[in-house]
Amino acid sequence: MSDSEFETAPLPPEQLDEDDRLKPEFVRNVIDRVEAGDAAGARELVEPLHPADVADLFELVSPEQRRALAAAVADLLDGDVFSEMNDWVREELIDALEPHEVADIAGQLETDDAVALIEDLEEDEQRAVLRALDPDDRAAIEEALTFPEESAGRLMQRDLIAVPEHWNVGQVIDYLRATEGLTTDFWEVFVVDPQHHPVGTIQLSWILRTPRHIPMSDLMKREQTLIPVDMDQEEVALRFQKYALISAAVVDHAGRLVGMITVDDIVHIIQQEAGEDVLLLSGAGEGDINQPLRDSYQARVRWLIANLFTALVASAVIAAFGAAIEQMVALAILMPIVASIGGNAGTQTMAVAVRALATNQLTQSNTIRTIKREIAVALLNGITIAVLVGVGAALVFSNPQLGAVIAAAMLINILIAGLAGVLVPVLLERLDQDPAVASSVFVTMTTDSMGFLAFLGLAVVTGLVR
Amino acid sequence: MSDSEFETAPLPPEQLDEDDRLKPEFVRNVIDRVEAGDAAGARELVEPLHPADVADLFELVSPEQRRALAAAVADLLDGDVFSEMNDWVREELIDALEPHEVADIAGQLETDDAVALIEDLEEDEQRAVLRALDPDDRAAIEEALTFPEESAGRLMQRDLIAVPEHWNVGQVIDYLRATEGLTTDFWEVFVVDPQHHPVGTIQLSWILRTPRHIPMSDLMKREQTLIPVDMDQEEVALRFQKYALISAAVVDHAGRLVGMITVDDIVHIIQQEAGEDVLLLSGAGEGDINQPLRDSYQARVRWLIANLFTALVASAVIAAFGAAIEQMVALAILMPIVASIGGNAGTQTMAVAVRALATNQLTQSNTIRTIKREIAVALLNGITIAVLVGVGAALVFSNPQLGAVIAAAMLINILIAGLAGVLVPVLLERLDQDPAVASSVFVTMTTDSMGFLAFLGLAVVTGLVR
Repeated sequence: MSDSEFETAPLPPEQLDEDDRLKPEFVRNVIDRVEAGDAAGARELVEPLHPADVADLFELVSPEQRRALAAAVADLLDGDVFSEMNDWVREELIDALEPHEVADIAGQLETDDAVALIEDLEEDEQRAVLRALDPDDRAAIEEALTFPEESAGRLMQRDLIAVPEHWNVGQVIDYLRATEGLTTDFWEVFVVDPQHHPVGTIQLSWILRTPRHIPMSDLMKREQTLIPVDMDQEEVALRFQKYALISAAVVDHAGRLVGMITVDDIVHIIQQEAGEDVLLLSGAGEGDINQPLRDSYQARVRWLIANLFTALVASAVIAAFGAAIEQMVALAILMPIVASIGGNAGTQTMAVAVRALATNQLTQSNTIRTIKREIAVALLNGITIAVLVGVGAALVFSNPQLGAVIAAAMLINILIAGLAGVLVPVLLERLDQDPAVASSVFVTMTTDSMGFLAFLGLAVVTGLVR
Repeated sequence: MSDSEFETAPLPPEQLDEDDRLKPEFVRNVIDRVEAGDAAGARELVEPLHPADVADLFELVSPEQRRALAAAVADLLDGDVFSEMNDWVREELIDALEPHEVADIAGQLETDDAVALIEDLEEDEQRAVLRALDPDDRAAIEEALTFPEESAGRLMQRDLIAVPEHWNVGQVIDYLRATEGLTTDFWEVFVVDPQHHPVGTIQLSWILRTPRHIPMSDLMKREQTLIPVDMDQEEVALRFQKYALISAAVVDHAGRLVGMITVDDIVHIIQQEAGEDVLLLSGAGEGDINQPLRDSYQARVRWLIANLFTALVASAVIAAFGAAIEQMVALAILMPIVASIGGNAGTQTMAVAVRALATNQLTQSNTIRTIKREIAVALLNGITIAVLVGVGAALVFSNPQLGAVIAAAMLINILIAGLAGVLVPVLLERLDQDPAVASSVFVTMTTDSMGFLAFLGLAVVTGLVR
């Protein structure tokens, strides 16, 4: 839609296109000024941007340009920008900074963002940055770093509002107004007992809509969704999503309130975890277009080599039927069809199963039903494709028996594909493996070799070739 | 981790496993009671569950069991449960209800959830439900239904808090306390001018931390992220994520505040849109394991037929080299390797490109750089795989020339795969097509036919066969 439709609403910033992406002209302008040595001019262009857009700008320019740009707009490169930046790009920029510069940035951040900033540094650099920090910040970050990577303890912020049960609305408001240095980044107030165990949660809107004399104990919701401090971030994200949480209390092993996670720290994890499956299933690892070349190569070549071995299995099947192919070259012409369509059918089922497992839709309770369902879909697909391919092959090669053989092979392979597509991910999940990582190799191997085996085997067994 | 580690924190409900999934024993218990006709017993089990878990329960049991379960726990099936339920399962249950029952449920919901409940009904059923609603609810839902599907207008709720700029903190708090019937489902207050245009946003925590005499105009953030009422939900989700929003004002074409979207309505869209790419790329449509069988069949078979045509192109390439294969059956044995690894390499690049486009990481500004990057990765992968396959083939078939031919073909096909893997999605996006939907067909067709062409063509050109 055109900007002019929004006559009186603030327009989207002129630097952005209708999808909130930085316009290419704008990016070029900034880089032209940087490369012409006009740092002040570049800074003038970048200054009005939202931190998320400054982060995008760094992602969009080339690695060489990033360093020059960083020098030109150094004072705009604050914690907010770094916490919005792609991991690889941030790492590269951070590596180029001195420890005291990194410490300056980390000091401005919430604990969770500061941890994200320095957790990937080399150990000695990390120590140097920590030494340059304020003792308070340093203690908080060091404690966060004791939790496993990608756990709630790394995600949480320590600044939160906790009040005793016997306070009333008026006392809470007075406390919030009078106390210096409290965070403003909170959406709920936690009610704790004298041992600092969370006993209830109160949305700020309830506090604002309630008379001053009402006690917290009357106002708070007692059913809380608590996050154990060592819970994996993927589980945290699922829990936020399932229970539509805005913030949640993080508790230690003794059940004491130690931190808070807010939904704005979770949305990018939800997006990342959900989007990651397509990368993992395709064998591209967790990489994106900003991943260093060497890392991308290593992640992908490993998977291509794994697939080379599965392709060898398929080739071995073909080799066993070398004589049959020499006798009837039509088999060589048609055999990739059986394997290719089977592979596609398997990938369809596998994608559905992997997503269903990732979103907790597919559990032990409905595994059998899901397998039956996928076989039913495979049967319908298999019959349709078998008829098309069988009739086509019979006509093109004027050989009805060849048509019957490829039709039967097609149906068999699509059924096997449906079964493998759901069984492989389910079994991997039961074995505590990530189904998205390893399923493809096994499913493809199955559909490739079974496709060739069914087609060439049936050709021999039915006497189509000797 | 075991439950016992959380001694004093409320335990996760006993019906759930450590991943917040309903335990299979629990599901079986409920169904056993339903099937034994013990509705009261089933209700007793279900009653303590969170609405999200009740929704999960319905998803986990079979379609036949769902109806009996719904009858047994009818009074627990409120709007919260339906708004958490999988679309297909909800549709099926709603179809089985009378219009006045649907209206009862819709009346309890926020506008956005009520719209989600009835938007997929047949037109005459929808009218019957609307007639049975309160006039106020009916008007709100009818207005929401005038906006396009999957637009901000359907997602937004109309209940929000808007205050004039000249009010101070005290006036806002007094208004919130004194006014009956205001929503409590808000996290920010919007400041509007006399024409109801939003001019600023105030987090509730700022109001709570500020003395009563401070005016809204001093407190509000003037840079707001406004959502046009007809913006697509995917764009809304990206905007929430990019700017870490908790709630946002929705404005009509004249820039007037007409509604509000909160992040809890967005997280499942973020998850769905990000997770959808793997389903679309695999050709499984937007289906999940709860999709009706016929819909799954139609969505998937269409794509298998499309792939049948791409496989025919590959077969035609092979057919052109029929004489070569008859002469050297090793070609038939090895040719699937070239196509298969090429296909995998193409899928890797394609997955990375599709995600980069979906997350606005890949824009016009870095397209060229990304293409160069992917070709560089392809070159490294290609050389590695070419050496492995070439040496292997030369040794196994005692034919160095065959090894050289397959190595060259492998390298060529992986380079083509890298190029197609990024160019196809980028071109589709430029043509305003969803790259996730159509990329696979084109990339697979390219890598299959180019793989066979390169391998068999080089075999002939180099004189390996006549």
